[in-house]
Amino acid sequence: MKQPRQATLLRIFMDETARGDEQPLFKEIVRKAQDAHLAGATVLRGPLGFGRSGVLHTEKILRLSYDLPVVIEIIDSDENIQKFLPQLASFDDCVITLAEVQAVRLDGGDTSTTSTRYSAGPPSGRAGD
Amino acid sequence: MKQPRQATLLRIFMDETARGDEQPLFKEIVRKAQDAHLAGATVLRGPLGFGRSGVLHTEKILRLSYDLPVVIEIIDSDENIQKFLPQLASFDDCVITLAEVQAVRLDGGDTSTTSTRYSAGPPSGRAGD
Amino acid sequence: MKQPRQATLLRIFMDETARGDEQPLFKEIVRKAQDAHLAGATVLRGPLGFGRSGVLHTEKILRLSYDLPVVIEIIDSDENIQKFLPQLASFDDCVITLAEVQAVRLDGGDTSTTSTRYSAGPPSGRAGD
Repeated sequence: MKQPRQATLLRIFMDETARGDEQPLFKEIVRKAQDAHLAGATVLRGPLGFGRSGVLHTEKILRLSYDLPVVIEIIDSDENIQKFLPQLASFDDCVITLAEVQAVRLDGGDTSTTSTRYSAGPPSGRAGD
Repeated sequence: MKQPRQATLLRIFMDETARGDEQPLFKEIVRKAQDAHLAGATVLRGPLGFGRSGVLHTEKILRLSYDLPVVIEIIDSDENIQKFLPQLASFDDCVITLAEVQAVRLDGGDTSTTSTRYSAGPPSGRAGD
Repeated sequence: MKQPRQATLLRIFMDETARGDEQPLFKEIVRKAQDAHLAGATVLRGPLGFGRSGVLHTEKILRLSYDLPVVIEIIDSDENIQKFLPQLASFDDCVITLAEVQAVRLDGGDTSTTSTRYSAGPPSGRAGD
């Protein structure tokens, strides 16, 4: 397997109901990540949570308000993540975490000895997809 | 954006079916986190998993037993997390992980140069919500 | 509570639709983790994501293709994780991350001063379940 490379895991915790300009905020953030050619984004949604307000959100409330936690996860080089962060600065009621991870993108072969294609690099790196 | 601060990510892995005193254990833990004025908690639930028993839990089994994995995520200062941990000590069949992260709570403005309000601090810090 | 021990969190990001030899790839990986006697695996599934292709997957597409992100999380000793990684090398279109965490398995008592049973160790350690 290719050698993992140092990367940064950005996680954004928010309510599913938080609104962006035209759509739910979590979708807007995923769209921004895509427009910024970040390597990928994964949204996870949970059945229960509470945030700064101390109000407990549950699936029962969901039927009324859909006010449930979502976590967006984005992994890329630290440089690319740091460039992306200012796009989040105006958002409200989100908690952002950053953590170092070792990352590798698997692409079906164990034979390559070239450096991993994981880190997003220039968009052209994904042109073949 | 405000400067992220060092924080601790506590994750608690368990079965959805684990029972607390009066309710599912994951709900009881979220309630305890709330009572301890931790900054927030997020529950994620998955469609498949196995734990110490080596028994595979799937959504098919779900129809019978709801025996699926949940992960509770709590982010706060390391001090607050360490104070909270003893409340979990009596629980069974959970795996707990602790990891250092950099965290920042966004509150809608990029103008503040004061330190982040992320860390839970005294409950009054959330009174305005 | 028992002292947490250093462990490695392996996370595998992929599409739910990725196919293994006989079943969805995420199920195949969980089965491999089980066969390798790793301490546990948790699958999380999300409502939205994009990967290397830059194509956005949403629940709307789900109705057609189920092409949604899943994350498999496996926690064990770094030694056991490293032994497991080669089993993933032939897979395509997955991103793998490795991160250090402190981990402890709770087993219902605060009284034990022996070392944690968290780390998978030999399978016999789980025989009682």
